[in-house]
Amino acid sequence: MGIREECGVFGVFGHAEAARLTYYGLYALQHRGQESAGIAASDGRGIVCHKGMGLVFEVFNRERIEALPGTSAIGHVRYSTTGRSHLVNAQPLCVTVRGTNLALAHNGNLVNAAAIRERLESVGSIFQTSLDTEVVAHLVAHRQSNGIEHAIVKSLNEVKGAYAFLFMTPERMFAARDPHGIRPLSMGKLGDAVVFSSETCAFDIIGAETVRDVRPGEMIVVDSDGYRSVYFDRPARSALCIFEYIYFARPDSNIEGVNVHAARKQMGKVLAQEHPADADLVTGVPDSSISAATGYAEEAGIPYEMGLVKNRYIGRTFIQPSEELRSFGVKVKLNALDKVVRGKRVVLVDDSIVRGTTIGHIVNLLQDAGAREVHLRVASPPYRFPCFYGIDTSTSGELIAASKTPEEITRVVRADSLGYLSIRGLVKALGRSEGSFCLSCFNGSYPVDIPAGAGKFILEGGTSCGEQV
Amino acid sequence: MGIREECGVFGVFGHAEAARLTYYGLYALQHRGQESAGIAASDGRGIVCHKGMGLVFEVFNRERIEALPGTSAIGHVRYSTTGRSHLVNAQPLCVTVRGTNLALAHNGNLVNAAAIRERLESVGSIFQTSLDTEVVAHLVAHRQSNGIEHAIVKSLNEVKGAYAFLFMTPERMFAARDPHGIRPLSMGKLGDAVVFSSETCAFDIIGAETVRDVRPGEMIVVDSDGYRSVYFDRPARSALCIFEYIYFARPDSNIEGVNVHAARKQMGKVLAQEHPADADLVTGVPDSSISAATGYAEEAGIPYEMGLVKNRYIGRTFIQPSEELRSFGVKVKLNALDKVVRGKRVVLVDDSIVRGTTIGHIVNLLQDAGAREVHLRVASPPYRFPCFYGIDTSTSGELIAASKTPEEITRVVRADSLGYLSIRGLVKALGRSEGSFCLSCFNGSYPVDIPAGAGKFILEGGTSCGEQV
Amino acid sequence: MGIREECGVFGVFGHAEAARLTYYGLYALQHRGQESAGIAASDGRGIVCHKGMGLVFEVFNRERIEALPGTSAIGHVRYSTTGRSHLVNAQPLCVTVRGTNLALAHNGNLVNAAAIRERLESVGSIFQTSLDTEVVAHLVAHRQSNGIEHAIVKSLNEVKGAYAFLFMTPERMFAARDPHGIRPLSMGKLGDAVVFSSETCAFDIIGAETVRDVRPGEMIVVDSDGYRSVYFDRPARSALCIFEYIYFARPDSNIEGVNVHAARKQMGKVLAQEHPADADLVTGVPDSSISAATGYAEEAGIPYEMGLVKNRYIGRTFIQPSEELRSFGVKVKLNALDKVVRGKRVVLVDDSIVRGTTIGHIVNLLQDAGAREVHLRVASPPYRFPCFYGIDTSTSGELIAASKTPEEITRVVRADSLGYLSIRGLVKALGRSEGSFCLSCFNGSYPVDIPAGAGKFILEGGTSCGEQV
Amino acid sequence: MGIREECGVFGVFGHAEAARLTYYGLYALQHRGQESAGIAASDGRGIVCHKGMGLVFEVFNRERIEALPGTSAIGHVRYSTTGRSHLVNAQPLCVTVRGTNLALAHNGNLVNAAAIRERLESVGSIFQTSLDTEVVAHLVAHRQSNGIEHAIVKSLNEVKGAYAFLFMTPERMFAARDPHGIRPLSMGKLGDAVVFSSETCAFDIIGAETVRDVRPGEMIVVDSDGYRSVYFDRPARSALCIFEYIYFARPDSNIEGVNVHAARKQMGKVLAQEHPADADLVTGVPDSSISAATGYAEEAGIPYEMGLVKNRYIGRTFIQPSEELRSFGVKVKLNALDKVVRGKRVVLVDDSIVRGTTIGHIVNLLQDAGAREVHLRVASPPYRFPCFYGIDTSTSGELIAASKTPEEITRVVRADSLGYLSIRGLVKALGRSEGSFCLSCFNGSYPVDIPAGAGKFILEGGTSCGEQV
Repeated sequence: MGIREECGVFGVFGHAEAARLTYYGLYALQHRGQESAGIAASDGRGIVCHKGMGLVFEVFNRERIEALPGTSAIGHVRYSTTGRSHLVNAQPLCVTVRGTNLALAHNGNLVNAAAIRERLESVGSIFQTSLDTEVVAHLVAHRQSNGIEHAIVKSLNEVKGAYAFLFMTPERMFAARDPHGIRPLSMGKLGDAVVFSSETCAFDIIGAETVRDVRPGEMIVVDSDGYRSVYFDRPARSALCIFEYIYFARPDSNIEGVNVHAARKQMGKVLAQEHPADADLVTGVPDSSISAATGYAEEAGIPYEMGLVKNRYIGRTFIQPSEELRSFGVKVKLNALDKVVRGKRVVLVDDSIVRGTTIGHIVNLLQDAGAREVHLRVASPPYRFPCFYGIDTSTSGELIAASKTPEEITRVVRADSLGYLSIRGLVKALGRSEGSFCLSCFNGSYPVDIPAGAGKFILEGGTSCGEQV
Repeated sequence: MGIREECGVFGVFGHAEAARLTYYGLYALQHRGQESAGIAASDGRGIVCHKGMGLVFEVFNRERIEALPGTSAIGHVRYSTTGRSHLVNAQPLCVTVRGTNLALAHNGNLVNAAAIRERLESVGSIFQTSLDTEVVAHLVAHRQSNGIEHAIVKSLNEVKGAYAFLFMTPERMFAARDPHGIRPLSMGKLGDAVVFSSETCAFDIIGAETVRDVRPGEMIVVDSDGYRSVYFDRPARSALCIFEYIYFARPDSNIEGVNVHAARKQMGKVLAQEHPADADLVTGVPDSSISAATGYAEEAGIPYEMGLVKNRYIGRTFIQPSEELRSFGVKVKLNALDKVVRGKRVVLVDDSIVRGTTIGHIVNLLQDAGAREVHLRVASPPYRFPCFYGIDTSTSGELIAASKTPEEITRVVRADSLGYLSIRGLVKALGRSEGSFCLSCFNGSYPVDIPAGAGKFILEGGTSCGEQV
Repeated sequence: MGIREECGVFGVFGHAEAARLTYYGLYALQHRGQESAGIAASDGRGIVCHKGMGLVFEVFNRERIEALPGTSAIGHVRYSTTGRSHLVNAQPLCVTVRGTNLALAHNGNLVNAAAIRERLESVGSIFQTSLDTEVVAHLVAHRQSNGIEHAIVKSLNEVKGAYAFLFMTPERMFAARDPHGIRPLSMGKLGDAVVFSSETCAFDIIGAETVRDVRPGEMIVVDSDGYRSVYFDRPARSALCIFEYIYFARPDSNIEGVNVHAARKQMGKVLAQEHPADADLVTGVPDSSISAATGYAEEAGIPYEMGLVKNRYIGRTFIQPSEELRSFGVKVKLNALDKVVRGKRVVLVDDSIVRGTTIGHIVNLLQDAGAREVHLRVASPPYRFPCFYGIDTSTSGELIAASKTPEEITRVVRADSLGYLSIRGLVKALGRSEGSFCLSCFNGSYPVDIPAGAGKFILEGGTSCGEQV
Repeated sequence: MGIREECGVFGVFGHAEAARLTYYGLYALQHRGQESAGIAASDGRGIVCHKGMGLVFEVFNRERIEALPGTSAIGHVRYSTTGRSHLVNAQPLCVTVRGTNLALAHNGNLVNAAAIRERLESVGSIFQTSLDTEVVAHLVAHRQSNGIEHAIVKSLNEVKGAYAFLFMTPERMFAARDPHGIRPLSMGKLGDAVVFSSETCAFDIIGAETVRDVRPGEMIVVDSDGYRSVYFDRPARSALCIFEYIYFARPDSNIEGVNVHAARKQMGKVLAQEHPADADLVTGVPDSSISAATGYAEEAGIPYEMGLVKNRYIGRTFIQPSEELRSFGVKVKLNALDKVVRGKRVVLVDDSIVRGTTIGHIVNLLQDAGAREVHLRVASPPYRFPCFYGIDTSTSGELIAASKTPEEITRVVRADSLGYLSIRGLVKALGRSEGSFCLSCFNGSYPVDIPAGAGKFILEGGTSCGEQV
């Protein structure tokens, strides 16, 4: 895989250890973003925030968590790009509107942010980040005459795209999900406290109980009286991002009641039905494809083996091999077990293929280790269209399936055969109707219209402020 | 001394090494602020900025300087408080207005910032820092319909207070000083490049030549055609902060043509005339009072001696003595030379007294080392009124001279005698008329009206975003 | 599991990128030690060494690797204890003997080191570490009159215990394995270069080819003429530490020709034969027990499921839960998939049980997630005797199986049933005779005599020198 | 100046806060060494040590000081070279001899260390550092049959050179000074505790009282019964390194009862008598030459002025100017006050001249600032011979006065005149006879014979072990 989620969000309202619980929550969501982490905490009067570049455990220490007071907090983890990343773009975004602190944490992408930003700038608004989230902060401030709740609802009515939003004022918390429910957001309980998370695995870590998913177009308002539900937009067709099941979410999370590992295993089973292979063993690309691979093995009645091992100790400052040593390439991260695969016909299961470069290396790795045949099976359909809702895929030009047939891809990656799960098989594995998901990366049918010329990083051109390490 | 300057600013326009020169400029201004440092650089199209907590050499390394492209740059150093300090308040402040990057660096304090901020918030502006500088960024954005230069002039017309401002757009630089010229700002030349600095010592370090001070109420506009002068406000009486001469500025800086060391030495001479002492030696509190002490010694015909030595190696993480070891207190930073002072009548010269705590310790240090008499001489008048123009003095309640006579202070610090330089003597030492300076801390006469209820930190209540270390 | 390996060693002779290759080799061996890392490199005249506390990627950066010159290098990773660990004990140990540099890297434990050290001290030798390795350095120095090779052989003849040793002089490298071959050590080739490693997975990462294991009692001498074999001791019964197969080694390593993953899977199969269970699914404790668990599942015909997920992002500075939040305990590292296990009869496979604390938590985690029954199956025999050959197990008092029967352990960990693999089954799974292994932790039969009163940390009492972080 | 002291040592025996007091003591001695710092502490049973690269406040934090237990401690600071420096060479050196911990801290240089090391290596001793101090540890271990005190005395009888030594065992402390007393070492009292320090300024910081200097050839033994004196060698002529007065020591230290600042001021006075100048002002190179400059000014009746200012904020990671910007060279550290020196005839006082490069830059700096004439006066005689007793001067080839007459030097540095203090004048300023000092760098008369071929770094060739940052 070569795609990246934008972010993960987490919030706690009404717990004496709000900041610390948020720390654990973010830690459980770390797979959704490793570039930066931040927590904003409220003591009922004002908001204090700490953000930094790096992993949750690097950004925070005991002293910093203890400096975040009060009984409510929201947190955010952001994805790691290979390019330049800046502290100024870390979240939560913390601003003051009419003398009141407001913190925002956002997962997703707003497709009309550029247009709104231009309009706001023309009336004198200044921007300090390149986050689309900042557009929403301005909208809220401009619409605040009838109170913050009304202002947030009005603002959400203006923005288009995919989002799971947490807003926090000193006294309240607001959790909202876009009308199509493209990005996931769940609500839980921990005693009397209300908690929100991009994924339920973060509830488990703190011993919270999952209550339900926030519904598409719903905003949940929490204050000292409890929580209530507001539907800020007319109902739209549900269109959950199917990649949460395929790749993003942790296997121990449940989305809309369906366990992610179980879903992946089922995808592997359907894949085995659609694309059987005459083979000696099944192996998966660690870690994300293990569930699908065991499903395939079980359905096909072929033994599941550990054909590949991933090194767990790689770090940011790891020295990449020099040009001369590049030949051993992918082995820094992944190694094949020659004693296991030598002379064998191997089914290699991957969850998805984006550019095709990595999987080509892996096929080669198995062949070098002596595999007689490598039958590549992909537990999702061909990835052909770019995402505009918060996933960092490049332009369609870089998507191998956008320009090549499966037969061509088979030759490029030098596999002996290749089978993709069908859209129909994918949906069947999830036991839901096709209309329940955003499948735009597979079928080009976008639930929210994309403005002409909209690229992924619609807000580039902001000043970029670096951080201190 | 226990007072702190707000900041130092530095700018370069039109030099291939703009960011690196700014690095050296800030380093020469480091005494004006040790809390944070930042540089914004422009390559003619956009602005890139790096800021961090700490000293200039800690915030920047070669890699970071090299990542700041282009031929113009502005930089800023900020003072270190004992309380909480936040990266979000580091400068330059970098924003986008109407699609254009704008960077601001500011030394001083705006007394009507709170009122303007309230008005801006009421029309929907959001604030992300607790800097009064951010108010100016908003004003500029709101007034930008007739171009950025017009917008800056209009904005400066609205704010009241003390300021030296550097503004940078991708193509231009603007240097402005408040109508009273309370905060210093000088212009220099380095080949064809134009440079600005809070103090001229920063010109020396890069081999630039001082051209002149920016004039009160003047804005200098620099672009690829050269520089020109704009007077944005009607003339007001000049009121340079006299504490620049007394304590803030480096001895090798020249302000309005007067060398700071020479001025201090002259103050020491006048002090010797006003308050002679029958003594064996003169010593000064290092480092800021050495110039005045040598002046006193020369005028009085008493030998100047090194009675006190300062430790040069103290760092942020130095472990302060525990309660049990506190007895040796001030010796961590300062030590008295017993062989020099034992049995002697000592004139101890300090540049100023704020709370009186530190000087009490120093008198005690000399007495413990065997000094027979300690005659305290202060090279400035009694500090009786709080500053609202960018100096971090506490409320008048903490100013010892606000509530105590010199006789009472003599007893509190347990000196054998005490003499303050008179206001008249101070002005005479500088060879200028009393009306040329802001003397408000001595006489309570404020050149810019202070709004009722205005405190020093007028913009508290903003969210405080921490930094990553 | 709660046991720790002592170390991993790696060496390269005759390659222009010796230090960099050693860096990658250590990185592949990182699972054998996370406390400290070090590399000594030779340019044919002298040896330069860099060591530090932490992971390989933390201790080394490009600049430090490039400062390690020459064509031969040896490296070492050391285990992480919960107690105090010191840089002075990091390896390689670098000394000068008769004007010549000598570097030593050692995995294992010498049972007579205390006695030899006492003898050496009585004749005036000084010790600077608490490593038993330092004893060997002294022995070599004392016996050096007939050359370094002779001195090393004589020294190895004196020490008793378990070891894989790499010695490097400016011109030569020596790789030795104890007469019983308790600790593993393999030789490989990379073009003309000779490489050594504790495990073959480190050969894969650099594209080297495995030649063979160094034999028990063999020392391989490498110099510019090539390599040759010296048997420094009479043959003894081979007694490879069986825990390398059970837990220590990476699944992609091959020891004496047997793949570690395949061995573990086979152990799981034999375990299923010996202790079948009436269950709905099989799951393993990640990551070390996954191989055995899939073997069990395959043999038993019960589906293998991902019942537990491990968090990958935990770091040294992770804030452990406070007392109040301790209730959610082990979930920080491990989470159970409730949708997978709820209402199910689960076979939980672990590779071994030492103290029993962790596995008790895991059983509880599954039960909390709704598992109807938890049948614990352990892919190794009861761990009853302490190890003296380089594994950090506590005294037998802390080994749960030393004092409790399987029935009692079942009750302590609150499992529904418990089955241990038999010694006979373990050996059968490996396809070798019982006499081929050191099984002392299971049967108390120690291949090398243990001196009366010998404890694990026989060399305590040395000065402990800390490091700078 | 371009010379560097080797080290500073500090010790405390019998105080509940021994490690913390040592931390403050080292901090006061920081000017004697900025490369590394270390403290070894004893709780009466064993010794724990912490060392690191960098300044005292960088190497230690509260946690590390608190991890150093017990009531006695010794510490060490080491000089900073421009070349490679290694943690393995940091002191105190901590070893185990016959089961007992021993820590050593040493200031000075042993001229026969290479010969002894060779002898020790020939009987099998191994070396782990390139410190001459390690030679002494071996000697002590070899001679220990009659107890540690006897062993230390015997060892000191064998080594030749300059030293101030602190030895610590779990129960005792030993402070020794070489028979000529070349390196300084003082004893003090803090309540019942005994303290030792290279300089008395470290006593002041902790409120200790100076008792006396340790005498040449004396070893003071401290244990729980108090202290007693042992003379381990026959009396030799006293030969204190005169550079302690000229440059090394802090002005607030007293050596053999003479205050360093006072001595320097007196040197400046004699210099004024020997080399008067017709000038308008006197200035000194900060910080080390200020005392001499004020003495010169006072004696000559010429005003003392601050003609040069030193930047206080330079740090290890400061980015040095690129080649293009090198022209402004020395201004990064030092700036001239043009308003003070313009058109003036300036007497520039420096404490000493080694290579002549730096002073040439400074003369040029004053001339560029407009000084009409620059009369260079040096408060010590021509530095013509290399030091073998612990000062890092290069070979005589690099000493400008070794090959050039004062007239030639005047031309090289482009001064208008040059005057050196005479040896006779220097000694007179100190009020002692010429025979009381080591003046070898001025007159080539070495109190301890230098072995043929002995260079400064006699122990090079040891393995060099780097540190972790």
